[in-house]
Amino acid sequence: MTKNTDDIEPYGKIGVIGAGAWGTALALVAARAGRQVTLWAREPDVVESIQTRRENTRFLPGVTLEKRIVGTGDLAEAVRGAEALLVAAPAQHLRASLAALKSHLDRAVPLVLCAKGIEQATGKLVTEVLEETAPGFPPGILSGPSFAADVAQGLPTAVTVAAPLDIALRVQASLGHLTFRPYATDDIVGVALGGAAKNVYAIACGMVDGLGLGESARAALLARSFAELVRLGEALGARSETLTGLSGLGDLVLTATSPSSRNFRYGRDMGRGASLADLNAPGRPLAEGVATAPALVIRARREGIELPVAETVADLLLGRLPLDQALVRLMSRPLKPE
Amino acid sequence: MTKNTDDIEPYGKIGVIGAGAWGTALALVAARAGRQVTLWAREPDVVESIQTRRENTRFLPGVTLEKRIVGTGDLAEAVRGAEALLVAAPAQHLRASLAALKSHLDRAVPLVLCAKGIEQATGKLVTEVLEETAPGFPPGILSGPSFAADVAQGLPTAVTVAAPLDIALRVQASLGHLTFRPYATDDIVGVALGGAAKNVYAIACGMVDGLGLGESARAALLARSFAELVRLGEALGARSETLTGLSGLGDLVLTATSPSSRNFRYGRDMGRGASLADLNAPGRPLAEGVATAPALVIRARREGIELPVAETVADLLLGRLPLDQALVRLMSRPLKPE
Repeated sequence: MTKNTDDIEPYGKIGVIGAGAWGTALALVAARAGRQVTLWAREPDVVESIQTRRENTRFLPGVTLEKRIVGTGDLAEAVRGAEALLVAAPAQHLRASLAALKSHLDRAVPLVLCAKGIEQATGKLVTEVLEETAPGFPPGILSGPSFAADVAQGLPTAVTVAAPLDIALRVQASLGHLTFRPYATDDIVGVALGGAAKNVYAIACGMVDGLGLGESARAALLARSFAELVRLGEALGARSETLTGLSGLGDLVLTATSPSSRNFRYGRDMGRGASLADLNAPGRPLAEGVATAPALVIRARREGIELPVAETVADLLLGRLPLDQALVRLMSRPLKPE
Repeated sequence: MTKNTDDIEPYGKIGVIGAGAWGTALALVAARAGRQVTLWAREPDVVESIQTRRENTRFLPGVTLEKRIVGTGDLAEAVRGAEALLVAAPAQHLRASLAALKSHLDRAVPLVLCAKGIEQATGKLVTEVLEETAPGFPPGILSGPSFAADVAQGLPTAVTVAAPLDIALRVQASLGHLTFRPYATDDIVGVALGGAAKNVYAIACGMVDGLGLGESARAALLARSFAELVRLGEALGARSETLTGLSGLGDLVLTATSPSSRNFRYGRDMGRGASLADLNAPGRPLAEGVATAPALVIRARREGIELPVAETVADLLLGRLPLDQALVRLMSRPLKPE
């Protein structure tokens, strides 16, 4: 497992589907690594802003996009000549996005998801949705502890790329450079699960923070959250080194301790007394963990696994449990041996 | 492993040896849980402050000590009638402290360490030093994500108590109350290792923070640190649920992300350019990881384990490696599959 990728030929051209902050940051990464990039945006104003100002003023303002990045609103143009596609569509819209994308694809190009979550309607991981919607296309997922703004600024970031190993290594060779280090693995389910679950646990940790319970309580809850992730991961066949790695523990720690995380902030605001109605009002930024929490619980039950922390978050978000009772469930287990 | 401790009789009287911030906070915990407590301090001014002002003005100012806590500078008095002793002596002085303590003990009372580290001269875990210095005394260790100030304030905190299981359960029953939850285990080596190693990794994570590399880089490093802890723990016979639990991952996350941690601050100051001479000047607060880092590396080598992150920290602290080269070693592994 120490294969260097110096001798692996990178992709010449990469298409990025979705020009939110993360899709745009990944387009920058690919361009900095030397790739030709097309960046597809759904929103006409974003397309125009990329084309005319070389900036995504709506989602990633203040960062100049390299000339190698061609913005487009035309899916057919976005995929033309691309040897791999990075798909940065939100989990709950992934199925529809993939269907639209597929109608423009005449060859089995690798589809690397850059979104995190579990489909609420089915309890399926994003990679399972991908394999179901686009069978025959090599599936992949890129995930890890990272914020779009940090990546865009060139702060050092390491992520995991999971796909059939030959493809994972080519993606790694295509995106890696001094400040962005992708690590290849073939543990697709492990990477997909870590990326989905961490948003749920970030809400729980944010809540404890918002209630002013201190860093010790938050750290204890984070350790318990990780234990839940490991239990479910083992049941789904994820490898333990993936769960303890960048896309598992690394991303969980980042998301569950940082006010820069939307999910952490959502939980924190809830802990400070914001109502669900306020938190879920239209126009508020999407916290993926809100949709993922009940889906994660349903999926775990199907595997015969109990997730007390995730269940508490789900019950809270569904309005089934008041905050004070949720807190008791999160923090005070009966005294017993670990 | 779901045994409730409601039916276990707590100890009547507990002696706390060492009245730093942590020893004093634990004396408060025991008193709040209903125990009679003697609190031994080495420093005459601390003894007097506890006796006359009911406050440890030097190490835990602003917190009133309950009447159940009797301060003393006399070891014989501290241990008289105590059914268990909490030993809060720093790791590097533990051997001498235990020798002094033993000369006052005429029966095999449980000795529960409340200090973290590895003895520099021997590469031994604090619990190994205990078993060697005081054979025949039931050995224990209390460790977990906690700050003395938070515990003293009554913020919710959960820790792990490792000892022969019947004793661990009695300690749990003796200290546990609404806001302080000890979890009993018999994995002494796992708890001792987690407590020692986390200080070393906190220095590394603090350094990355001090250099302004962002939260993503810190989270990636933390995940790699945890993987090192797991590797060494497995070699030493620690259980994986201990390593992923409160005293392992929980404490690592807290210490390696919080400016309230002395070890994190030490690394952060180093990242900001402070010299080793400044950082180690007399009067600066003790960062246990400084003594532990080389000892951890030596111990790991003896077990045939490589710890690249801990080795980098040790080399840096010993002045063998400049900061910029340390950073390269910490952050940029060659691109390779995980």
